[in-house]
Amino acid sequence: MSIELYDLATADPKLRFSPYCWRVKMALAHKALAWREIACHFTDKDRLPQSSAGTVPVLVDDGQVVGDSWHIAVYLDQRYPDKPLFACDQAKSTALLVKFWVERTVQPFITRMGVGDFMATLHEMDKAYFRQSREKRFGMTIEQYMSGREQAREGFGAALEPLRAMLAEQPFVAGKQPAYADYIVFGALQWMRCGSPFPALRQDDPVFDYRERMLDLFDGLGRRAHHREVLASS
Amino acid sequence: MSIELYDLATADPKLRFSPYCWRVKMALAHKALAWREIACHFTDKDRLPQSSAGTVPVLVDDGQVVGDSWHIAVYLDQRYPDKPLFACDQAKSTALLVKFWVERTVQPFITRMGVGDFMATLHEMDKAYFRQSREKRFGMTIEQYMSGREQAREGFGAALEPLRAMLAEQPFVAGKQPAYADYIVFGALQWMRCGSPFPALRQDDPVFDYRERMLDLFDGLGRRAHHREVLASS
Repeated sequence: MSIELYDLATADPKLRFSPYCWRVKMALAHKALAWREIACHFTDKDRLPQSSAGTVPVLVDDGQVVGDSWHIAVYLDQRYPDKPLFACDQAKSTALLVKFWVERTVQPFITRMGVGDFMATLHEMDKAYFRQSREKRFGMTIEQYMSGREQAREGFGAALEPLRAMLAEQPFVAGKQPAYADYIVFGALQWMRCGSPFPALRQDDPVFDYRERMLDLFDGLGRRAHHREVLASS
Repeated sequence: MSIELYDLATADPKLRFSPYCWRVKMALAHKALAWREIACHFTDKDRLPQSSAGTVPVLVDDGQVVGDSWHIAVYLDQRYPDKPLFACDQAKSTALLVKFWVERTVQPFITRMGVGDFMATLHEMDKAYFRQSREKRFGMTIEQYMSGREQAREGFGAALEPLRAMLAEQPFVAGKQPAYADYIVFGALQWMRCGSPFPALRQDDPVFDYRERMLDLFDGLGRRAHHREVLASS
């Protein structure tokens, strides 16, 4: 029985931008595991397995239901120890700080740059739910929130400075080869690339080269994804 | 022959706040190695070993001269493999992103909150050099730069959000036990604690509890240090 991955769907069956789902896809490919994707809309969560928490990604493996991208990564390393995502416990613990760095410091800028574009890609039935939940969180309309996107691009560039400095020393967060800490970072970059035409990264940024390396992995798994990015002439 | 560590000196022989030197002291204590500190003023760098780059910390071990706190940590793990600072190569690589996160995202707020206080602790002969070099970097006077310290405290609090979120899951960056990634973070917190009376951390912040745990390590090595912190009544 193959692995099933419940993934976030947009109106275009080929467009998938959830950063958390991208982490899991890269992790599965890292382990050379096959999987089948089940697209799931925001307002379509009744389709998720009963025991899940109601958010994607959800992995179903041989009857086991695992939610939350981090828990899925940990599960995969336990169930399939070959080609580990975490080379040792300390690497896993340290990757947890990387996870929260991405989620608390980097990704808020992506939301600010792209949230209206992300909404535009959704199925009509999802748009009202998406607008309402996000506007409640922001305390303003999506359009007001996005009006700060030029400033958010500056913040995004500054937030990536630690990664940029690190890339002068080694090609991946995990060292010479990529591993789960990289898939966390890549999930954020791929979210923006797939979900929005707003030019967030400059081509002369070392982070752009890093993303290119990540896009090439696993026979171009990330590169083959439908994307909406328009590159800025830098 | 014991290990010698060239450490940054202030006017008070007991006050040492260099974050990079603190990383190394914690690393040496982690390995249960003894060392002798040689205090060195900013304008006193002729005292450093010839082959060093002219900045502290410098470690001299059995004739080997090693500069730069990261290189010192890597050297210590090679030379003294017991009680590793990095449990595996991937943990080391991932800690390099933590290092640059601390240096590029967290520490600039510490500079902004404390630089005038740091200058005030220095030996008279260092003050002119310190002012000149910092004001050139900031493009303004130290007093102008510090006038944004209330705002920098907010930025500092926000920059620590990934650490705060991580601390809900595990007690140290390295997991159940502290290791070098923690000493990098601690170096920044100890720099502020020792160098400035400006209340940067709230006592109800999980980062404060984390720092308490770090201060208790190695028979209170960090806690015994002369400090200038005044706690805010929160």
